[in-house]
Formats: sequence, C-alpha cells, structure tokens
Amino acid sequence: MAVTSALDLVGFDADDTLWRSQDYFDAAQLEFEAIVGGYVDLEQGDTQARLYAVESRNIGTFGYGVKGMALSMIEAAVDITSARISATDLRRIVGMAKDMLHHPVELLPGIVEAVHAIAARHRVVLITKGDLFHQERKVAASGFGEVFHRIEVVSEKHPSTYVRVLAECGVAASRFAMVGNSLRSDIAPVLALGGWGVHMPYHVTWVHEAAVEVDADAPRLRTVAAPSELPAAIESIDAGQPFGNAS
Amino acid sequence: MAVTSALDLVGFDADDTLWRSQDYFDAAQLEFEAIVGGYVDLEQGDTQARLYAVESRNIGTFGYGVKGMALSMIEAAVDITSARISATDLRRIVGMAKDMLHHPVELLPGIVEAVHAIAARHRVVLITKGDLFHQERKVAASGFGEVFHRIEVVSEKHPSTYVRVLAECGVAASRFAMVGNSLRSDIAPVLALGGWGVHMPYHVTWVHEAAVEVDADAPRLRTVAAPSELPAAIESIDAGQPFGNAS
Repeated sequence: MAVTSALDLVGFDADDTLWRSQDYFDAAQLEFEAIVGGYVDLEQGDTQARLYAVESRNIGTFGYGVKGMALSMIEAAVDITSARISATDLRRIVGMAKDMLHHPVELLPGIVEAVHAIAARHRVVLITKGDLFHQERKVAASGFGEVFHRIEVVSEKHPSTYVRVLAECGVAASRFAMVGNSLRSDIAPVLALGGWGVHMPYHVTWVHEAAVEVDADAPRLRTVAAPSELPAAIESIDAGQPFGNAS
Repeated sequence: MAVTSALDLVGFDADDTLWRSQDYFDAAQLEFEAIVGGYVDLEQGDTQARLYAVESRNIGTFGYGVKGMALSMIEAAVDITSARISATDLRRIVGMAKDMLHHPVELLPGIVEAVHAIAARHRVVLITKGDLFHQERKVAASGFGEVFHRIEVVSEKHPSTYVRVLAECGVAASRFAMVGNSLRSDIAPVLALGGWGVHMPYHVTWVHEAAVEVDADAPRLRTVAAPSELPAAIESIDAGQPFGNAS
C-alpha cells in the first residue's frame, strides 16, 4: 500500500516518445542513398557508414536536428560522389529538410491519454533535445503545449542538463522520473543522478542514441512496451512498489 | 534624486549587443556573391535581393541562425546559377557555415565592464534569438555564463516571448528594461508591453531586423552609442530621471 508520494516531477522526452521522429530520419537516409546511388555503386562503397561518420564528426558543430542533418548530407554527398553530384541533386537534400520540418506531428498511439493521466497526478515537464525552432513548432502542433509545466529544449542531455532543470523546478533527483526512448539521453544520465527512469523503446533507434550501457536490472529503472503502460509504471515508482506487482 | 528603484530586471540581447555577429553574416554574403559570381554576371542579376528573398521565405521553416542561412544559400545558389554551380562550390557554403559556428566570440569593446556594472545593481537575463546550440557555445565562450540570472534562447522575439520570460521571472513589464541593437526584436515588443528599451545600434543591421518603426521620442526609450553608456542609461531609468540629465 502506498503511504507517501515519492515523485514530485515527471519528465517526458519528445521525439519517439510523444511523436514519431526517427522514422523520418530513416526515410531521409534512404532518399539520400537513392540520390547518391545515381553516382556510385551503393553495393561497393559503404555509403551509410560514410554518412554516419560525417554526421558524428559534425554533431559538435551543428548539434542535433534536421538542418544539421541536411548540411552533413550535402557534405557527405559531395565527398562520396567525388564532387560529381549535380547541383539539382544537392538541392533535393535541402528540399528533404524542408519537408521534414513541415511534416505534421504524428503522436504515438495512446500517448495523449497516458500523458494526461500522469499530468492529473504529477507535475510534468517536457525535456527535448534538438532544434529549438522545430521542437517549438512540434509542441505547438501536438496540442501538448498547455499540459506541460515547462518545455525545455536543450542542446544535449548530459547529467548537468538534468541538474539545471531540476534546480529550476526545485526538485531533488530522487523525486524525479524521466520517460523516454533513449537509454543514452533519457535514462542513463537520470539514473546516474539518483533519479528514476522509465524506458519506452521505440521500434527504431538512431545508432548515436543506442551507444550506451544501462543495467536492465537497475532498481530505479522501469521498462514499458507502449504508452498505455506508462501511468502504471509511474504510479509503481510513486508508491514505492515493484512495477507489475501491485498486490 | 532617486527615491525608489524602478527596475527589477534588465534583459540583454546577445548578437551585436554583447558580441559581433552581423559582420560574419555580411562577410558570408560577400563570399556567397564571390562563389555565385563565377557563374553569373553579378552586375546583371540581382544576386543579393534573390538571396534575401530565399532567406525571408525560409525563415518560417528554418528559423534564425547559421545553419538555416547555409541551407538558404545553397538553395539560392542553385536557383541563381540555373543549377550550373559545381558540387565543390556548394560544399564551400557548408564550410562557411562551419567556420562561422566555430568563430571565436568577439566581445564588443566595453561590454564586459558595462554588464558587470549593471549586474552589480540589478538582476540581469540574457534573451537571445537564434540557434540554441550555437548560442550556448557563444555564451560559454564569452565568460558571461555566470553573470546572467537566466539564459533564454528563443525562436522569435515577439511580445508574447517577453510576456513568458517576465512571468517566469515574476517581474512586471513596467519594471523591466531590455538592452539591444534591434528595434524590431529588442525594443518595439518591450515598449509595446509597457517596458523600457535601451537601444544600442550596431554599425550594421540585417535588413530583416531593420524593418520596424519606433518613435525615437518614445518616453520609455533610451538610445546609447556605446556599451560604456549603458550603466548610466539603466540608472536613469531606475531613478526615473531623464537620461543625460542626472542633476
């Protein structure tokens, strides 16, 4: 039986937690390969690995998001094709970026009900990485703007990022749970601070976000398969009970 | 003689208020013209106007900042050259963006002393438009990170933006002064809310930021020529005295 409330604040990631995102990046990558495939034999070269190498090298310069992706793709396309690619094909990459930035927000099934159920009992904040302009547009289009106590668009999700957000909210890490699809960005740094993590894997993960080790048996980690399971996972933390054993 | 303090909060713009910025964009534009000039007669076509038309059209998609500038330049370069531009030349535009994003921060002469003098007497916040990742890098490099009570990177400086920031700081508009170089972004919206504006024109202004009318005789507007004049302008507001007449 729950005696006291253990949680003061619940954080939500946005991309691939509230709405679809990585699918569009994966589709853009296929389109990139189709464009570059007009110049080089995709079977021969390691196009995908070369693009990722350029993207990884540029993360520290461009940060996350669609615009940086497009600039890295243009750089990679010129390199991979030994500068034989046409101006028209390079302009297609700018067009891909625009399409992605204008894409309607597609909320994950069941997430509206889950967020509202949790928001009815807890203070909720949105903590998302990426491009400020694009994230604000998606928040506005999602209808979630009024639900969240704060919207934090951050450039990286390091432990120090969470320390700052928690300080601004006046909450101890031990009374904070973060919900997200990325072990690297949403779960590991919060567990490291003594907070709680609710991991909801998405069906695809960018290789950059997958690169982390988290102990699946960590006592302050819950894993759910779908948004509909989120409220029970949060309440199990709040009540100090093992998740999936509410008796 | 000042009786009560009139100001609870002083906001500072960043680009072209704390550090140089527009100069780099102007230099990038010259480089863009040099690249495109290899394909078209710059005397004949209206290269500059065509670039600005693309940039203006894309602001609502890309937002402000270097990455959006580069993507717009690539789009404009392909259009202006009727797709004759080489992949190597388009890649130079990506390189320009990287150089701008890595450029060391160049503080305006006297701004360090001015900000510290004002911060010694007032709570100060930084309110800057643009790319989150780039602005955070510049704040960190500037040494101003510890001086400001808050750092707000916003996607647009509308009156509603200032309403939100003031609400989060718990300050009435009438007790807020904003310091900046842009009449459109820093001064007009704050005056419209009943706040105070301290306009410090920069020697160059992007045409986009210049497009606004502000009454130079507005009673809550001060204009200064250099950072060294900022502390006196703020104190004249704080003391309710006309600026330049402290007797």
